[in-house]
Amino acid sequence: MTTVGILGTGIVGRTLAARLAELGADVVVGARTADSQSLEQLAELNVGTGSFADAAGHGDLIINATNGLHSLAVLESVGSDALVGKTLVDVANELQPVEGGLPKPVVAADASLAQRIQDAYPDTFVVKSLNTMGCHVMVNPSIVAGDHTVFLSGDDAGAKQRVQELLASFGWRPEQMLDLGGIDTAAGPELMMTAWIRVMIARGFDGTFNWAVNSA
Amino acid sequence: MTTVGILGTGIVGRTLAARLAELGADVVVGARTADSQSLEQLAELNVGTGSFADAAGHGDLIINATNGLHSLAVLESVGSDALVGKTLVDVANELQPVEGGLPKPVVAADASLAQRIQDAYPDTFVVKSLNTMGCHVMVNPSIVAGDHTVFLSGDDAGAKQRVQELLASFGWRPEQMLDLGGIDTAAGPELMMTAWIRVMIARGFDGTFNWAVNSA
Repeated sequence: MTTVGILGTGIVGRTLAARLAELGADVVVGARTADSQSLEQLAELNVGTGSFADAAGHGDLIINATNGLHSLAVLESVGSDALVGKTLVDVANELQPVEGGLPKPVVAADASLAQRIQDAYPDTFVVKSLNTMGCHVMVNPSIVAGDHTVFLSGDDAGAKQRVQELLASFGWRPEQMLDLGGIDTAAGPELMMTAWIRVMIARGFDGTFNWAVNSA
Repeated sequence: MTTVGILGTGIVGRTLAARLAELGADVVVGARTADSQSLEQLAELNVGTGSFADAAGHGDLIINATNGLHSLAVLESVGSDALVGKTLVDVANELQPVEGGLPKPVVAADASLAQRIQDAYPDTFVVKSLNTMGCHVMVNPSIVAGDHTVFLSGDDAGAKQRVQELLASFGWRPEQMLDLGGIDTAAGPELMMTAWIRVMIARGFDGTFNWAVNSA
């Protein structure tokens, strides 16, 4: 397996790191600073830790698991040199906290987070995927019954192929992967987060579910 | 079955009208003016036709199947008197045409169309439902395999019960109906339209599919 750099030490980054380490991948997880306290929690995982730049420099494949509100600032701190020619899997959601209410997506149909990352780093191959589900489902799809769906959006066919291989290593079957097209299609999955949160609440705050696309 | 007034003579309104007439309902479909040419196409259906006000006045149950961009103007032309105490099923989507691009939802997470309708007509019982699928699936869910999902959002339990009965008459089973909560939850399903359009395109412009919520 390729080397992987994960940006972000939240529950998503940690879950992806643990699963990839379990699968034998060579992973470095990055935080804002290499001595971040949040990295201590990663010590029990068989992964390396460092700064965002350390993680990006380490991985042939980079996963953006930062808070979507900060993703562009994190990538700017890394710098484009560490990102050139690499596949960047963007699993982030850009949700603005609302006092006394639910987090609100700030994306628009013509300005997804993934699109803005791709525009800012034209020599990086951005693939949006996995953002429409809880992280435990991302890395272990078999915990949800049936042929539920993971979406992919990206401009580069080779990069999407690499992400499909990553997904397959997590247990996703080819028929569960739905390629929506170019990176301009990423707004669709990003805008599903409001419904995801509502369904999660309606299910009694149970996030172990996923979207499926059923047809005739 | 109750009397039904359908606002809107597009493909959604016509499909709902045809199906309800087939089920023996007493339906009037309304257009901007009672002598609208679009009503002529409805002649072969066993439904009455008239103005928006005629349809709203006729129905105990009212279905908003207008273009979401015009829904509030249509309801204003009807006037609140014809809407008081009635259940209004809002199946509309508010999509702004984009030159050379895909229609773009204008809703925001805290300002769904259904919420704005409810705010404007506090004595009407607004229930958002059915907007997350093509109209042929709305009225005949069995054309899609498996336990796909129809969402409901609304503040009044009695009104939601009436809409659940309407859905049941179309063939929806109770386990396929997912009550998301109050009308403030309607933004979730409304924001799914961008993904719906992208999936439809990825499927070769085939809209005979629906979302399912799969779980453990």
